[in-house]
Amino acid sequence: MDVLNPYPTLVLDETKAKTNIQVMAQKVSKSGIAFRPHFKTHQSREIGNWFNRYNIDGITVSSLDMAKYFAEDGWQSITIAFPVNILEAPEINKLSASIDLRILVVDKSTITKLDQAISHSLGVYIELDPDYARSGVSFRDFELIKELISAIEGSQHLALKGFYCHAGHSYRSRSSEQIMEMAIPIIKQLEKLKAHFPYPICYGDTPSCSVLEDFGSIDQLSPGNFVFYDWIQTQIGSCIPDQVAVAMYCPVVAKYTERKELLIHGGAVHFSKDFDTLENGSLYFGQVVEQNQSGWSSPLEGCYLKSISQEHGIVSCTDKFFENTRIGDHVAILPIHSCLTADLMGGYMTLQGNLQPDHFSGQKFK
Amino acid sequence: MDVLNPYPTLVLDETKAKTNIQVMAQKVSKSGIAFRPHFKTHQSREIGNWFNRYNIDGITVSSLDMAKYFAEDGWQSITIAFPVNILEAPEINKLSASIDLRILVVDKSTITKLDQAISHSLGVYIELDPDYARSGVSFRDFELIKELISAIEGSQHLALKGFYCHAGHSYRSRSSEQIMEMAIPIIKQLEKLKAHFPYPICYGDTPSCSVLEDFGSIDQLSPGNFVFYDWIQTQIGSCIPDQVAVAMYCPVVAKYTERKELLIHGGAVHFSKDFDTLENGSLYFGQVVEQNQSGWSSPLEGCYLKSISQEHGIVSCTDKFFENTRIGDHVAILPIHSCLTADLMGGYMTLQGNLQPDHFSGQKFK
Repeated sequence: MDVLNPYPTLVLDETKAKTNIQVMAQKVSKSGIAFRPHFKTHQSREIGNWFNRYNIDGITVSSLDMAKYFAEDGWQSITIAFPVNILEAPEINKLSASIDLRILVVDKSTITKLDQAISHSLGVYIELDPDYARSGVSFRDFELIKELISAIEGSQHLALKGFYCHAGHSYRSRSSEQIMEMAIPIIKQLEKLKAHFPYPICYGDTPSCSVLEDFGSIDQLSPGNFVFYDWIQTQIGSCIPDQVAVAMYCPVVAKYTERKELLIHGGAVHFSKDFDTLENGSLYFGQVVEQNQSGWSSPLEGCYLKSISQEHGIVSCTDKFFENTRIGDHVAILPIHSCLTADLMGGYMTLQGNLQPDHFSGQKFK
Repeated sequence: MDVLNPYPTLVLDETKAKTNIQVMAQKVSKSGIAFRPHFKTHQSREIGNWFNRYNIDGITVSSLDMAKYFAEDGWQSITIAFPVNILEAPEINKLSASIDLRILVVDKSTITKLDQAISHSLGVYIELDPDYARSGVSFRDFELIKELISAIEGSQHLALKGFYCHAGHSYRSRSSEQIMEMAIPIIKQLEKLKAHFPYPICYGDTPSCSVLEDFGSIDQLSPGNFVFYDWIQTQIGSCIPDQVAVAMYCPVVAKYTERKELLIHGGAVHFSKDFDTLENGSLYFGQVVEQNQSGWSSPLEGCYLKSISQEHGIVSCTDKFFENTRIGDHVAILPIHSCLTADLMGGYMTLQGNLQPDHFSGQKFK
């Protein structure tokens, strides 16, 4: 790496991220599906523009503010993949005057209230719950779905865009086979649903989208994390470590010989506190990778981010890695959950040392 | 509450925070100890100024950038309570030209390198590890401590300010008695240490500082979290729920009758993912409190933030709370770890509806 910051830095391997985008875009295109990629992971206008070379139908974001951020950058069709917050109706109405804005609805009373609160046409997806139990209407409850469709069709300003379905329980998988086992019955149920309700279906968790080859009757895909991937995705079975496009570069500030641990500047305000679990049941917060001339390559077995507090990180090491690492070096660590790390870091540095601060939560970036 | 945002908001009960500050300042003063409060939790210039009415010796922060932020606000004596990152030596040197800057050191080679890299006088504390095993020299290793003192005293630019000792393992306590059991032997060992090395000792975790009445030979206290406290501090035994001065106010966007759960706007990008554990072993991410005319009072037993993803939160409810809560209402939730929540939120709103954005990480605030 050409340039190293003296402080914790999110480093992006642009080639890996561009390849991740290309692979997903080609898969989507080959399947004859529309691509509405989620921008909540990268949150970056620069990376957003990398999608322009592919045939995309629009984009997906996770909040109204994020929609505004990307609308300002010229994006014309944006889904806020979150059940509409009725308190935000005035702002939603304002934004929908200038772009093809789409939101999610999950209950009838909100549909009625929303319709009364707005004056511009607004696209809505009915959010379906594929037994994940986070949000949405059960994708088996055809009666309720029918009621919601009627409410939308009877409304003055709402235009039904179809169904939105996020199978977030794919994150509980620990192999690509497990992802398939979870996803295939969902795809089948969505086919049944479509036989009853012939509206477009948008689907989108990164594990399913990475592993599935046959998307059945799905019409649109909206994964987001795949642009960067992260260490948990390697454990879920979505990708291999070499596909992870971001690493945190953290300065080593102390070495503790007896416990073979490094103290780094890099804590919960940088990584977030998402974790994975070691075989012995202990939590860990990131995976150390081997640095090379062009960035980083393989995970270093036995070297991981053992604990984090606000600014401190403790890296557990093998004897060899401990010996080879000096105070003042940087340790490269794949974050457990790149969405939260990227949100906290608010920008990134490329392997060539270029800073890219134009990021939705980018104000902490320096 | 007079004004409610349509989005997740960190609400501060100023009276509670001011009382927390007063109680701690009076305790410190009564003990004849110098007060160097940690500003890493609140990160706010406004709140920083509330300390001016008390006799404080200086302040403590967790990063060089945070030191710069408060130095710009006129603070003249600042400890960066983090083992010095030698890569930041040029910036440290620059800041130490204009204020009484103090950093922590934990090894001899860094002392030598730091001394060579700077040209202005710089205060240093030797960080002691009271068996927490995060950072510092073991507070039993008098030989190594002696070597570090010699290295500092033989340096050209470093002025020994004493010892800094953070007993972070107090966070593993689950009652005030357990905090005492952990802290009292530490206080005794620090007394022994001081008999050998008569330098000032700075000590500072919020649990110990909240519970201890006799600080032995400690000279300076630097707790930080106590300004806000949080839900985990009530579980540790540092405070009672009524002392927690911040709550997240999150809009309800959906209700799920079968599982008696509310979906709120409020996720890992607002709360962070720090957690506590329920009796059944499940994790949870915040405690719901009862709102009243002047803010909030007691925790609502059986109502807690059960899970969070990037923007979504699921609140598990009692039948009564579920019935009484409507879509569009706000749920008030005490965060597990206010330091990380305040860092993510970047500012706060008072109970009177006043916005206070002048916060170190304040750029996400609106």
